[in-house]
Parts: sequence; C-alpha cells; structure tokens
Amino acid sequence: MRVISSPEVMNSVSRKLIRSGKSIGLVPTMGALHYGHLSLIKKARKENDIVIVSVFINPKQFSKGEDYERYPKDIINDRLKAAKFGCDILFHPGNDSIYKKDFATHVKVEGLSEAMCGTSRPHHFKGVATICLKLFNIIMPGRAYFGQKDYQQTVIIKRMVKDLNVNTDIKALPTVRESSGLAMSSRNSYLSCQERELAGFIYKSLKDAQRLIKSGERRSAKIISDISKALRSHHINIDYISIVDPATLKNLKHTKGKVLIALAVRIGKTRLIDNILVSS
Amino acid sequence: MRVISSPEVMNSVSRKLIRSGKSIGLVPTMGALHYGHLSLIKKARKENDIVIVSVFINPKQFSKGEDYERYPKDIINDRLKAAKFGCDILFHPGNDSIYKKDFATHVKVEGLSEAMCGTSRPHHFKGVATICLKLFNIIMPGRAYFGQKDYQQTVIIKRMVKDLNVNTDIKALPTVRESSGLAMSSRNSYLSCQERELAGFIYKSLKDAQRLIKSGERRSAKIISDISKALRSHHINIDYISIVDPATLKNLKHTKGKVLIALAVRIGKTRLIDNILVSS
Repeated sequence: MRVISSPEVMNSVSRKLIRSGKSIGLVPTMGALHYGHLSLIKKARKENDIVIVSVFINPKQFSKGEDYERYPKDIINDRLKAAKFGCDILFHPGNDSIYKKDFATHVKVEGLSEAMCGTSRPHHFKGVATICLKLFNIIMPGRAYFGQKDYQQTVIIKRMVKDLNVNTDIKALPTVRESSGLAMSSRNSYLSCQERELAGFIYKSLKDAQRLIKSGERRSAKIISDISKALRSHHINIDYISIVDPATLKNLKHTKGKVLIALAVRIGKTRLIDNILVSS
Repeated sequence: MRVISSPEVMNSVSRKLIRSGKSIGLVPTMGALHYGHLSLIKKARKENDIVIVSVFINPKQFSKGEDYERYPKDIINDRLKAAKFGCDILFHPGNDSIYKKDFATHVKVEGLSEAMCGTSRPHHFKGVATICLKLFNIIMPGRAYFGQKDYQQTVIIKRMVKDLNVNTDIKALPTVRESSGLAMSSRNSYLSCQERELAGFIYKSLKDAQRLIKSGERRSAKIISDISKALRSHHINIDYISIVDPATLKNLKHTKGKVLIALAVRIGKTRLIDNILVSS
C-alpha cells in the first residue's frame, strides 16, 4: 500500500490510473478506522480496480467548542487496517496542503443542511460538502463509499453530486454495529465502560420505535416521545429525535411509507448519532 | 460542428474524448457571441485538440429586476460564428436540464464575491461560480477561457478552481474593444446610437486615469474623482469606481505596483462594466 500526503501527487497518480483505464473507489474517512470503515473498504475492493482511502480530520466541519482538537487519531493502526482490507493508496494530506492560506470557497446544499444535525451544527455540512468535493476533484473516483450511520451526510453528498454534475457515484452502505447494537463510530472511543453500556440503549430505542410503527402507530409525536422517555430513563441527553422523509429530510407528522428515524444524543461529553429506516 | 443540448450526452462525449487522449478547451458563454468571445475561441483552437463553446443564459446569476428576461439571444448566428472560428462542439443546454426541480446547491467564494460588482449584484458571483463548476464537471475541460472584461469573474473562478482542486486551467484573455474603445459585450446591443457614442467615454476615462497615474498621482480618491467627473459630464451614471489590488480585489488608498481600476456604469437602462490594469 502506498501512502501519499501531497494533493498534487495524489491527483497526478489518479490521472495516470484513469488514463490507463483503471476504475477508482474512494473511501473518505477522518481516520481512527473501525469495522464500519472496513466494510466500506471491502465493498470498494470488490467494485473497483484501485481502492483509495483518505484520512483527513477536516477542521471546517467542526464548530468552536466541538471535538476537533481531541478527535481520535491513530494513523499507524489506520495504515495497518487499510492495507489489510485491501486499500491500494492511503491519502493522508496535511491541513496546510488542503486549505491554503487564502482559502475562501465553500459548497452548500441548502435545505438539507439545516435539518436534523444542522440545527446544533450549523456549519457542519457546508464543511463536509466542501471537503468531499475537494477529495473528489483530487482523486477523481468513479465511486465513493459512505456509511448509512451518517445518513444526512449521504443525502447531502448525493444531492451535491447531482446538482453539480460531479462524476462520482455515491454508495451508501449499511451501518455496522457492535454486538450491543451501538453503531460503530470513531467517537465511541471517548466513552467510558459505563457510558458504552448506556450507548447500547440508543439502537434499542430505535428498534422499539420500529416495532411500535409496525404495530400500527403512525403519530410521529407519540413515537418520538416514547424514544425520548426510554433514553432519558437511562440518563441519555437528547439533542434531537426526528422522523423524516428519507429523501427530503422533511419532518413528518405521521409516518407513511418508508421513513427515517434519526437522532443525536449526548452521553457525558460525547455526541453520538444513529438512525433507522422503517417501512410503515 | 456538433450541437449538443443534453448534459448527459455532453458528459459522455467528453469522457470518450478524454479517454482517447484529446485535450478539451471550453469557452463558456451566455451566447450573443461577439468578437470578444471569438478571440477566446481562436485561442482555445490553438491550445486544444477539441474546442467546446457553451451557450447558456444562467438564471442564477441574475437578480430580480435585472435583464435576465431580455438578455440578447441569437443562437442561429451563434452557431454560424462558433463554427466559423473553429468550435467543434456547441453545448446549448436547456434550463431544466441544468437546474433540476430539487436543485439546492451553490458554490461561493467568500470575500472576492462581495467586492465591486458584488455590492449591487449580491448573488451574482455565487451564480457564476456554481454554473462554471457545473460546466467544468459536465465538459471536463483541461482549459477554460474567460475575458478580462469580467475581471472580477476571472479572479473568482481562478480562486474557486484553486480552492476546490478543480482540474481545469483558467485562462484570462485581454478585453476586445470596438474602435471607440468600448469593451465588446453582448449588452452593447441594448444601446441606442447615441448611448453607444457615450459609452466610448468609459474606456477613455480609464485611459485618462492611467495617464494620471503614470504622471505620478497616487491617491485613489483623486483618481476616482477625476474618472467620476468625466463620466458624469457625459451624463453617465456611476454604479462604482474602484481601485483595487488585482489579486485580492481589496480597495487601495494609494496606488502601488500593479493596480486594477474597475467600474460599472449605467447608460440609460444598460449596465456596463470595464477595467484596466495599470502599473503605477
């Protein structure tokens, strides 16, 4: 596995690969790779000639007071894991090579970026869209792989790609979970043993909501209230719980057809997100 | 010369050209082609295997009350002119194929977009940057050609390309002028005979300012005031006159080194822009 840190070198390597007829699959990550990432790498391995994993903790998607400074870093293990799962090139650029001194441009997907996580993280998805577009332009992948855990992110990136005619197919893959049901996330490493146990209730509350819908409940307010009560009973603080149209992310008063239940919670200082798609 | 209206067809034709090793030069226009455009096409012809001219009047770069509805359209002559000057493919998409119903994404270059023309046209450069990025993604040109008449536009597009790692070189070519000095512009067709005569004073005032600087004047306020007086004496209404750093577009109190004098004026209902680079 080759490791490249310069965007210019990465771009020139990608150009040569494309010119020689190779297909490129990109797995964009912020590092601290876990089995969620690894499932994306494995899928990319199956569908492309060349698999590139990017590791870049993007400062522009964090607001002040968030966990940018303490975000988990583990590049040595990332290299081992990426190589083991079939990555050909690890792209690991520095901050200064990605954001030059006079950097001034952003990409924003209006509407979708303000819902759900956008409420408490108003600049987050602008930062995500911008870095993804930069990575797509540097690496020029035919396909890029994202996890459904970040559902809103995948919807926004898909829309950006469609709206801006970007030449990359966006693939969203199922969330990988620990045995407790907790969605794999680099941020899980923040959790103490006790907190990690509590975090298992997040997915449990979503599965309970799914059962409630399957049993005939249609009122979003009632479903949200039940999730909320369950989580609070475990001293889990709620950032938001939303039941939305999976395509538009618009809140639904009543569930109908396929709906997304998405939430963000805080356990101690750690903010965690999860979601479930339910056919009602 | 081939005419293509579908972005999907255009993209697939471009991909094939690139795969077969051809270089593509793009001249993005809003049609009503004049000698300014034709100089861009000629330059693109010299530097690329394939020359593509896009004709698209981009609604997103017009604000309400501007001249979107009456912007000159002359596709029959555009086709003749483009073919005559060596264009291989004319890309002439419809509005609905460029902006799908749920379109929601924009690209913005902060800072540079608010100066000069950005003051009276606050959404203009967001619209320009977005459509240019879309065209670059659809057509994937190695080079794209713009006229220096739209100086601020070229600075913004160059910055966007740098910031977002777009794989297109931006070429800015000198303004082409009528014998009176009036910068070629599709909007000149709005002018009556008398107005067109007045419009000749725009460039004259810029040349006078250049002479004033060459003679030792350094105070921007004095230079601007002289241009302003000259134009007002011909009943030309001033939108703005700016003396700025050519790279940052920041206002300069005193001229030093290379400076840009840029202005926008109104003659009757017609808004015209022009600029001159001066070494002081």
